Amino acid sequence: MNKGRFITIDGVEGAGKSTQIDLICSYLQRKGIKVVRTREPGGTDVGEKIRSVLLDVDNQEMHSDTELLLMFSSRNELIQNKIIPALNNGSWVVSDRFTDASFAYQGGGRMLNLDRIAKLEEWVLGDFQPDLTLLLDISVEIGMTRIEARAAKDRIELEERAFFERVRSVFISRSEAFPKRIKLIDASGTINDIHEKIRLLVDSI
Amino acid sequence: MNKGRFITIDGVEGAGKSTQIDLICSYLQRKGIKVVRTREPGGTDVGEKIRSVLLDVDNQEMHSDTELLLMFSSRNELIQNKIIPALNNGSWVVSDRFTDASFAYQGGGRMLNLDRIAKLEEWVLGDFQPDLTLLLDISVEIGMTRIEARAAKDRIELEERAFFERVRSVFISRSEAFPKRIKLIDASGTINDIHEKIRLLVDSI
Ligand SMILES: Nc1ncnc2c1ncn2[C@@H]1O[C@H](COP(=O)(O)OP(=O)(O)OP(=O)(O)O)[C@@H](O)[C@H]1O
Ligand SMILES: Nc1ncnc2c1ncn2[C@@H]1O[C@H](COP(=O)(O)OP(=O)(O)OP(=O)(O)O)[C@@H](O)[C@H]1O
Ligand SMILES: [Mg+2]
Ligand SMILES: [Mg+2]
Repeated sequence: MNKGRFITIDGVEGAGKSTQIDLICSYLQRKGIKVVRTREPGGTDVGEKIRSVLLDVDNQEMHSDTELLLMFSSRNELIQNKIIPALNNGSWVVSDRFTDASFAYQGGGRMLNLDRIAKLEEWVLGDFQPDLTLLLDISVEIGMTRIEARAAKDRIELEERAFFERVRSVFISRSEAFPKRIKLIDASGTINDIHEKIRLLVDSI
Repeated sequence: MNKGRFITIDGVEGAGKSTQIDLICSYLQRKGIKVVRTREPGGTDVGEKIRSVLLDVDNQEMHSDTELLLMFSSRNELIQNKIIPALNNGSWVVSDRFTDASFAYQGGGRMLNLDRIAKLEEWVLGDFQPDLTLLLDISVEIGMTRIEARAAKDRIELEERAFFERVRSVFISRSEAFPKRIKLIDASGTINDIHEKIRLLVDSI
């Protein structure tokens, strides 16, 4: 049996990740490919419990390194107990956010040292990496406007504008540092135009 | 103001840690020292939430690296948001379990590579270490008998006998590797005899 492919999608809030994942999953299924869809933090029983600690607005005082360690705890559980078994089983896996988000949010947003994050990445992932990362890039302002309608914000969404500007800028520099894996896509176009571009990239792996 | 001292106490289940911590705290208080008592995993709001994920018997399938990462997430929160502030404030801190338990339980018990654990320790703690670690050493059998009466077991207590033998043996080798910090105490004596020995050690720092 062929091993599946691992695709991750990332970008600031409201970039259109969930929307495009719906379309990617339908597209793959129409081609007869088994797809496992997941998200971070979370995606496993243990991971969803970690997610609720991470996003709980009561946990305002959480230390940034704790946040990062919890993100990687959830990620490890997801990789070991869900992603790797699914790939070995021939399924493709599509994840809403992955390690690049730790660099962007904890590194860019919370200004943790990026080399320090890379050390933890190395500890947890070894050389495991997505086959393709779709970075949906959009201005923080447009992203925010798109999700404005949503009710309550979680602990991280409560951050100020400058935080998300730093997040976006780390995402962009990572796409420049890893051009083979991370494909930056202008996410200001129409949903269909973006999906067209993504389809070509997905077909290429 | 003088900085406080950081004392940790460790050992297999039923060694008498909680009993001796009660006595240490009263002893220090009688000497007019401010004492902060804490425990691992847990000890902070975020840490206690992590603790409940770690000990939940529903989480049987948890990957060992996830367990270790969660232990260090809780530990980081404890160090940064409780231990360091208390020490800076002149209080002494006494913790029921600390990093040595990660080497013993995840390294010995779950057989994770000890050097790999040391890397994570280095990432989280840097060169922060307890001033004194009291290792209460007792045979697994006696320890188990002491706590037999207790009702429900948590996820880790459900492990088999050989698991705890490995835990004990890593504790012992660590006390040999770090003889200045970790003092092994025969915990098969009476509560008072053990407390006497501990008092001398505590006085020495
Ligand atoms: N290309 C687009 N043009 C205009 N609106 C869009 C586009 N893509 C998505 N939207 C709309 O923007 C909103 C946010 O989209 P979506 O939930 O997919 O973003 P997201 O990146 O998953 O957000 P979050 O980071 O909060 O999960 C939705 O209402 C969606 O319908
Ligand atoms: N030296 C001792 N001799 C006999 N019994 C003891 C001694 N020390 C403690 N005990 C008893 O053994 C039981 C376990 O002690 P304690 O709760 O202090 O151990 P512990 O190491 O904290 O256990 P756990 O790892 O489960 O937290 C208690 O009932 C306690 O009264
Ligand atoms: Mg979404
Ligand atoms: Mg106890």
